[in-house]
Amino acid sequence: MSELPATMRASVLLEVGSVVVEERPLPELRADDVLIKVASVGVCGSDVHYYEHGRIGDYVVTKPLILGHEASGTIVAVGSQVDPGRVGERVAIEPQRPCRKCDYCRSGQYNLCPKMEFYATPPIDGAFCEYVTIQDDFAYQVPDSISDHAAALIEPLSVGIAACRKGGLGVGDSVLIAGAGPIGLMTAQAARAFGAAAVVVADVNAARREMALRYGATSVVDPLSESTEDLDAHVFIDASGATPAILNGIRSVRRGGSVILVGSADEIPLSVAEIAMREVIVTGTFRYTGTWPLAISMLARGDVELDSLVTHVYGLDQVVEALESTATPGALKRIVRPGVRRVDDPEAAARQG
Amino acid sequence: MSELPATMRASVLLEVGSVVVEERPLPELRADDVLIKVASVGVCGSDVHYYEHGRIGDYVVTKPLILGHEASGTIVAVGSQVDPGRVGERVAIEPQRPCRKCDYCRSGQYNLCPKMEFYATPPIDGAFCEYVTIQDDFAYQVPDSISDHAAALIEPLSVGIAACRKGGLGVGDSVLIAGAGPIGLMTAQAARAFGAAAVVVADVNAARREMALRYGATSVVDPLSESTEDLDAHVFIDASGATPAILNGIRSVRRGGSVILVGSADEIPLSVAEIAMREVIVTGTFRYTGTWPLAISMLARGDVELDSLVTHVYGLDQVVEALESTATPGALKRIVRPGVRRVDDPEAAARQG
Amino acid sequence: MSELPATMRASVLLEVGSVVVEERPLPELRADDVLIKVASVGVCGSDVHYYEHGRIGDYVVTKPLILGHEASGTIVAVGSQVDPGRVGERVAIEPQRPCRKCDYCRSGQYNLCPKMEFYATPPIDGAFCEYVTIQDDFAYQVPDSISDHAAALIEPLSVGIAACRKGGLGVGDSVLIAGAGPIGLMTAQAARAFGAAAVVVADVNAARREMALRYGATSVVDPLSESTEDLDAHVFIDASGATPAILNGIRSVRRGGSVILVGSADEIPLSVAEIAMREVIVTGTFRYTGTWPLAISMLARGDVELDSLVTHVYGLDQVVEALESTATPGALKRIVRPGVRRVDDPEAAARQG
Amino acid sequence: MSELPATMRASVLLEVGSVVVEERPLPELRADDVLIKVASVGVCGSDVHYYEHGRIGDYVVTKPLILGHEASGTIVAVGSQVDPGRVGERVAIEPQRPCRKCDYCRSGQYNLCPKMEFYATPPIDGAFCEYVTIQDDFAYQVPDSISDHAAALIEPLSVGIAACRKGGLGVGDSVLIAGAGPIGLMTAQAARAFGAAAVVVADVNAARREMALRYGATSVVDPLSESTEDLDAHVFIDASGATPAILNGIRSVRRGGSVILVGSADEIPLSVAEIAMREVIVTGTFRYTGTWPLAISMLARGDVELDSLVTHVYGLDQVVEALESTATPGALKRIVRPGVRRVDDPEAAARQG
Repeated sequence: MSELPATMRASVLLEVGSVVVEERPLPELRADDVLIKVASVGVCGSDVHYYEHGRIGDYVVTKPLILGHEASGTIVAVGSQVDPGRVGERVAIEPQRPCRKCDYCRSGQYNLCPKMEFYATPPIDGAFCEYVTIQDDFAYQVPDSISDHAAALIEPLSVGIAACRKGGLGVGDSVLIAGAGPIGLMTAQAARAFGAAAVVVADVNAARREMALRYGATSVVDPLSESTEDLDAHVFIDASGATPAILNGIRSVRRGGSVILVGSADEIPLSVAEIAMREVIVTGTFRYTGTWPLAISMLARGDVELDSLVTHVYGLDQVVEALESTATPGALKRIVRPGVRRVDDPEAAARQG
Repeated sequence: MSELPATMRASVLLEVGSVVVEERPLPELRADDVLIKVASVGVCGSDVHYYEHGRIGDYVVTKPLILGHEASGTIVAVGSQVDPGRVGERVAIEPQRPCRKCDYCRSGQYNLCPKMEFYATPPIDGAFCEYVTIQDDFAYQVPDSISDHAAALIEPLSVGIAACRKGGLGVGDSVLIAGAGPIGLMTAQAARAFGAAAVVVADVNAARREMALRYGATSVVDPLSESTEDLDAHVFIDASGATPAILNGIRSVRRGGSVILVGSADEIPLSVAEIAMREVIVTGTFRYTGTWPLAISMLARGDVELDSLVTHVYGLDQVVEALESTATPGALKRIVRPGVRRVDDPEAAARQG
Repeated sequence: MSELPATMRASVLLEVGSVVVEERPLPELRADDVLIKVASVGVCGSDVHYYEHGRIGDYVVTKPLILGHEASGTIVAVGSQVDPGRVGERVAIEPQRPCRKCDYCRSGQYNLCPKMEFYATPPIDGAFCEYVTIQDDFAYQVPDSISDHAAALIEPLSVGIAACRKGGLGVGDSVLIAGAGPIGLMTAQAARAFGAAAVVVADVNAARREMALRYGATSVVDPLSESTEDLDAHVFIDASGATPAILNGIRSVRRGGSVILVGSADEIPLSVAEIAMREVIVTGTFRYTGTWPLAISMLARGDVELDSLVTHVYGLDQVVEALESTATPGALKRIVRPGVRRVDDPEAAARQG
Repeated sequence: MSELPATMRASVLLEVGSVVVEERPLPELRADDVLIKVASVGVCGSDVHYYEHGRIGDYVVTKPLILGHEASGTIVAVGSQVDPGRVGERVAIEPQRPCRKCDYCRSGQYNLCPKMEFYATPPIDGAFCEYVTIQDDFAYQVPDSISDHAAALIEPLSVGIAACRKGGLGVGDSVLIAGAGPIGLMTAQAARAFGAAAVVVADVNAARREMALRYGATSVVDPLSESTEDLDAHVFIDASGATPAILNGIRSVRRGGSVILVGSADEIPLSVAEIAMREVIVTGTFRYTGTWPLAISMLARGDVELDSLVTHVYGLDQVVEALESTATPGALKRIVRPGVRRVDDPEAAARQG
């Protein structure tokens, strides 16, 4: 193990619209933690939302915050209770630190832990920095066949896996997915791995529909011109956050079917009769539990393809650029490399992997 | 078996607000049917709704319809495939005739059968008449300890049982029930039989709250002055149909808890973030499957008390009076006795059982 | 519709070891039945068992019985309640006739119906004959891409699907399957379609292990020389009927894992401590419910390959030959074509499809 | 908080048949532990088994071991991470220390944790001593209405609760319980609280059958003279450990029913056909998860009665007497009070509570 530095570079959100790179002390390494040198970090819509609005629901940025929670890296040090043999391991990070003692944690629903400390959720720092810590069992070794980027993107893939699980998606089922952004495309791939026979992806954007056919969709629809109400889907997963898409999805599931809300959305007008008389189940997913081993297995078998979803790669000094590139035409998944200061051509860097 | 008449008296809804008693031929007895002389029929809110509005959702009264679907009686004849020994049996009627062949029927969800023929749902006639038929397995023998009224009221009790089941209510759980009308009071009793440790009933009406404490509630709240958001309930069951009650209920369940919508309600404004971030399950129940044997067992053991919920008993010529007595102070459950023309004092008749 | 004959040829088991071809009247067509001209019928171990022993458990052959329950064909007539448009449909037959009224049927477990009438189970006749009937919803249309043989073999495939379902096999799970006969090979393919990451097939026969690798297995083991106790399998499915295989399988599942007994076996010595302290679930499957649509979808997508499992094809006059060919080296799945009298070269006929 | 002593008295099993009282240092108090002064400890069959045989399965007593794992007491000190306000709390102890990091722990099945440290299971010490530690969330506050004895007996009650849960016992179900010893009697009470309509207890001993009727049984049977095969039970729970009882129980459950093995038993001859053709589920329970809050709620509501099951109370110097009193006529549940040296009349002490 090479000597660790005393400080690290970190990209810090000071307040809405203001991000700076600071020198920070390395995070404290607790007895059952591992210290990870960060390799790749995906940019999530929630990072952009904190940058633009300073809050998500009840979570408010009241002091400087490091964003980024889709992360991979290499273990460079371990706490006193952790096997020192893990130093050098390439890992994907599940960015959760549950209390492990509440009823939720003890019954297997640790994602609902009221004391959860989650990366990049105020006041907990995230991974747009050189080093992070996590408890040893939330750092998962990945084989060499899984790239740094793909290892980082297990986090959003986990959102899709959790949605499929929550919907009880099974072999031979049909699923409608609204939204062909990164989450939608990963969910479509997950749905196929779950054995879904029909994976229908709806998006108003023709280019995105085209993408969907490459990433798991068995068919695509333009919701502006095509109805899915005859689809009789077992499960509808909303990855769009658009009210019309959600209402259409509710009408597209069969009696007794499930509606899983993943995308952040506002209030929707819900017809009670429609829910009750058709016994439709409406719920959502909040993060995930137990998805990393499954995701790694899916990636290792080639059931899921993540690398080609990366369209831009940035250095740590370019976090603002990464956050503001959402609307760039063709932009899909953007990655920050905290160990790099600047990338001259983010698109070329993405193509190189 | 005494000779059967060729015709029977039936109370028929001609159009909104117009009910007449007619002489009708007895219903056709198919090979696997039983013919039942009707004893007691409960008046349901849906009967009142058809009387006042001529429709419920997509179900529209376009030709004369016999209302009434909460029924008990005695088998007086059987079809060719049914054991003749059943003649003389006192029975509670599950008023459903599913197709038994669709995916829903074959997988145990016959309540969702698209070809369902259900009593008093256009164009299928109900039980405000002297004789009805049902397939033999939907007529359940009741012991002498269960009265005609109670046997009829197994139907609304089944709604409560189905709601508790759908919510996954288990021993030691806490449940919030909104609305202390007949359905709410029966649901509260069912919840206790399911082993719920806390059965909290919310109603704006003080007299109804008082009632709830006699029928299963372990505590009651006035939603206008008391919050239930700290209740951390496992399950919320809405039997009120009131939007504020539903929204309050959604906030009163714990993370991962269930919201079961039983009462008919309009559109509610549903916060997607609240559902998704707390993984609350919102769904409803439509009728029931497999509840009669359980209800009979609950009644036989004394876990549930139905007779004292009956406040008015009417004859067949008084169906309009029964339908219009909803708002009568103190009115709870009203019963029609198709074998009786008129009851002089409906309240006294109720007290006599 | 061409004119139907009054009689048909049927291969009848008279008593142990005695099979004759007889002329029989066509089966009675009830109101909701379809009449099917049989195309292909698979030979099952249970057919052989009745032929050799005259009984399976409590089912005893006391009068002449037509064997064969893995069948496909074409609808040639329909009962009065069935859409006449179905005449001409190519169908796979689910050979069950449940009562549809008992608790099991009504709750979706019709395979457990005590009144079940099942093909080739005394006293119900099977499909080694020119024509059979079944209720309309148990005759499933198949696309042209599914051959007669494959349509017939949906029956044993269903056994594998039911076993995977009963074991709760899910995406990413590991499963151990003992026995690489037809059921084992179909179960392995089903397991893959269910998303299992590791499908380990154990068989003492090297040639069969080789086969398994072509039909779904991700790896194979020789139980005589290799242990699977470190496999930590989520599910073990026994398709061997061999006591040592079952005991080994019980030890090979993880804590809380499931053991599904499909193969007919005798009494096994079960260690209570091993079951209880590891909370292993030991159960079995009896036939299936709701598997045909899923199987057809799997076949249509190419997730499962059945045709190449057929090694011998016989005519109706050769049923004895078909029943006695079990031990023929290289024999896997044998098919009888009731519409054909004799096939000169059963192996060549199999290769031709 | 009064000053804690440096040492405590502990009853130690040295080897088979040899128990001595020793002065021992107090157990180490870790950061998230509480230190409990032990009040009451139940004597379990497993304690007797270690005393008589020195091992249970793979758990072997190779160095001195403190027995006793059914314990209650009062918190007298807390670790650095625990709220000091808990000192003085009366608690029931869940005697498990899971790793909280393995797949089992993280998915809610911590009872299956391979790294579990469990009281009185070699090499982990139990509670026949003055002080014990446990992690804070495994020490549950009990109200004054629950006695020290009852608080200790939540442990065996939890075994019964876990068995009912594992069997999926629901409202209106029927359950057969073999064995009317302490576990059987607690399971019967738990079954009633779960809403079971029929709780049938089988025991060859007439006095124990009499007891069962006082503790939850709705009826009792003498297995030597009465058959339960017509019971058609949803669930069978074996608390007898007797092979004939288990085989009879397997035959007494309905198709698709569950057999839960709780009692330690040897190998049983299991008929595969009987399991598979009736789809009976055979499994067991190992300890429990999440039962203490439910048990406390049941006790507080009076659904379960434990105090009167205590027939003998001993001091710490009388552990051998307690262990050897199993066969005493009338002995049911025996309690050790570690804070007391000797009890002159154990039966009188039990009557005094």
